Amino acid sequence: MKNDRFLRALLRQPVDVTPIWIMRQAGRYLPEYRATRERAKNFLTLCKTPEFACEVTLQPLERFDLDAAILFSDILTIPDAMGLELYFTEGEGPRFENPIRTEKQITNLAIPDPNIELRYVTDAVSLIRRELNGKVPLIGFAGSPWTLATYMVEGGTTKTFSQVKKLLFQQPQSMSILLDKLAQAVTNYLNAQIAAGAQVIMLFDTWGGILSTQNYLDFSLNYMQKIVQNLTHEYEGQRIPVIIFTKDGNEWLENIANTGCDAIGLDWKLPIGQSRKRVGNQVALQGNMDPCMLYTSPEQVRKEVANILASFGSGNGHIFNLGHGIHPEIDPELVKVLVDSVHELSKKYH
Amino acid sequence: MKNDRFLRALLRQPVDVTPIWIMRQAGRYLPEYRATRERAKNFLTLCKTPEFACEVTLQPLERFDLDAAILFSDILTIPDAMGLELYFTEGEGPRFENPIRTEKQITNLAIPDPNIELRYVTDAVSLIRRELNGKVPLIGFAGSPWTLATYMVEGGTTKTFSQVKKLLFQQPQSMSILLDKLAQAVTNYLNAQIAAGAQVIMLFDTWGGILSTQNYLDFSLNYMQKIVQNLTHEYEGQRIPVIIFTKDGNEWLENIANTGCDAIGLDWKLPIGQSRKRVGNQVALQGNMDPCMLYTSPEQVRKEVANILASFGSGNGHIFNLGHGIHPEIDPELVKVLVDSVHELSKKYH
Repeated sequence: MKNDRFLRALLRQPVDVTPIWIMRQAGRYLPEYRATRERAKNFLTLCKTPEFACEVTLQPLERFDLDAAILFSDILTIPDAMGLELYFTEGEGPRFENPIRTEKQITNLAIPDPNIELRYVTDAVSLIRRELNGKVPLIGFAGSPWTLATYMVEGGTTKTFSQVKKLLFQQPQSMSILLDKLAQAVTNYLNAQIAAGAQVIMLFDTWGGILSTQNYLDFSLNYMQKIVQNLTHEYEGQRIPVIIFTKDGNEWLENIANTGCDAIGLDWKLPIGQSRKRVGNQVALQGNMDPCMLYTSPEQVRKEVANILASFGSGNGHIFNLGHGIHPEIDPELVKVLVDSVHELSKKYH
Repeated sequence: MKNDRFLRALLRQPVDVTPIWIMRQAGRYLPEYRATRERAKNFLTLCKTPEFACEVTLQPLERFDLDAAILFSDILTIPDAMGLELYFTEGEGPRFENPIRTEKQITNLAIPDPNIELRYVTDAVSLIRRELNGKVPLIGFAGSPWTLATYMVEGGTTKTFSQVKKLLFQQPQSMSILLDKLAQAVTNYLNAQIAAGAQVIMLFDTWGGILSTQNYLDFSLNYMQKIVQNLTHEYEGQRIPVIIFTKDGNEWLENIANTGCDAIGLDWKLPIGQSRKRVGNQVALQGNMDPCMLYTSPEQVRKEVANILASFGSGNGHIFNLGHGIHPEIDPELVKVLVDSVHELSKKYH
């Protein structure tokens, strides 16, 4: 590994400068991404063709001095492999042809074999690892069981979460069966990604933050903890760190830290120093710049980087990132300023 | 006042049972509301015609034993009166014909005279007070300056808040001028509502929760505090309590309590007992049932009411409510169960 800053920071080991990667760093703000997507015709083909997925995964690393690569994929590959048939509509986001409507559908759901139904993902991981050639570590990822269940029951995005909460409140046992299956499916999927070459794992819990505390603990965090426990912890002599990111989950940082994960993803609402005080040295912290800061100027981006680095302060365990995926309208030139500023301005804290 | 439970609870005075009202209690879940809206042809006419606004405000009180009425209106009446021309599109929510695009527009914005440009609102308040005839107190309301600014700059709803954050980050002084004008406009508007008969004031800060802590304090809470300070505190010998509700604002309950408001609106994420521990007896708390609980059964609604009452515990200062507006698909029969359960099951805590 030529650059292991990211791995070291995840394990709270000393680094020369603070590592940085960016959620959705392979995305629409890059003209080269838009060109590849054009060639692929649509988003699902981009995800399902290992050569395309590899190509866009590597694009941001050509432009910026990023400290990690993240597999280009979608969190809904698992429900798609379970037979729900994912598709995307312009402006409406992901949809399923066969959403979960009955208990019988839950009972009948089969756990996919990641090396068969999701082979395109593990093939992409192997290909990316080969092409990366030790430049930076590769992050594999999955959606949390609760987040996947939300999309599967709602049939797509929602504002009210009425269908999934109806199931949760009225048939908590059916919900548990669904979440158990998804936890198993996610575990198998992530272990297959690790076996194919993923060196870090991230769980995206996009919709845990819409739950009450008790429901979050019982129906979202609980299943993420099961996954963390059952993941391959070491592969070819290397520890595989796990990051958990619950969007709108600031209420529960202490609980997340107690799952046994290595790092917590943060949004921009709390100063990172305040979050650090709450979790101590139990886990590393990843974040936490508002992606809208990239609509400003090089000077303002540098100033905000300085603020966040100062808020975290000295010591190990900070991975710089945005608090949410980068927006499609962002100027790549400001991303370069961001990445270089983090490396330059963080020296004094290490 | 035949029923002053709500006023007493807001001031942390003893009550016989816990009062309850429901955000959007005059809304689409009621067939009689849908009938009136049909007659009004569209939503804006419903808001702008005092007779219609009065009619729908009173409808839920005919059906349920609610402890408060809330003026039927929209938070965007102020920007509309400032010349932005509000309209509604099916499925896309509110839009403005003339969103804020330049500094010059901000400089040119005039503060409306609530008794002229917003006369339809004060007329509705007077009419509702007369029709209520002392049955229960009437709540007047407005959007927070930050929330109004968000809609005015974005031109409608948004997922990324890119336009309003661009203005905030790049031209904080222009943003402050805009927010100062809005704070003045909201203050005048609410004082006119009080003069017309509103007995309680609620500030809806729908979008404060998308800000970082420092930005929330400087650009949202700061202006709400100015409003609280400049509102009419007593009218015809009666104290006028103020409720602040910042959606997704659980990080800042202590800060909100320090504005001088009388009560804080809560979502369902934290157990209300935990929020109560944080703010002590400084303010009353309003909340906090998940509106999706109304998709379940009478038994489950009663059980959840019991949980929330037990979480708050004995003592004064609880107003029962949902943590968000009631959904259009809810069965009114379950709303009756909710209202009656709160009154019945809360006796033992008073």
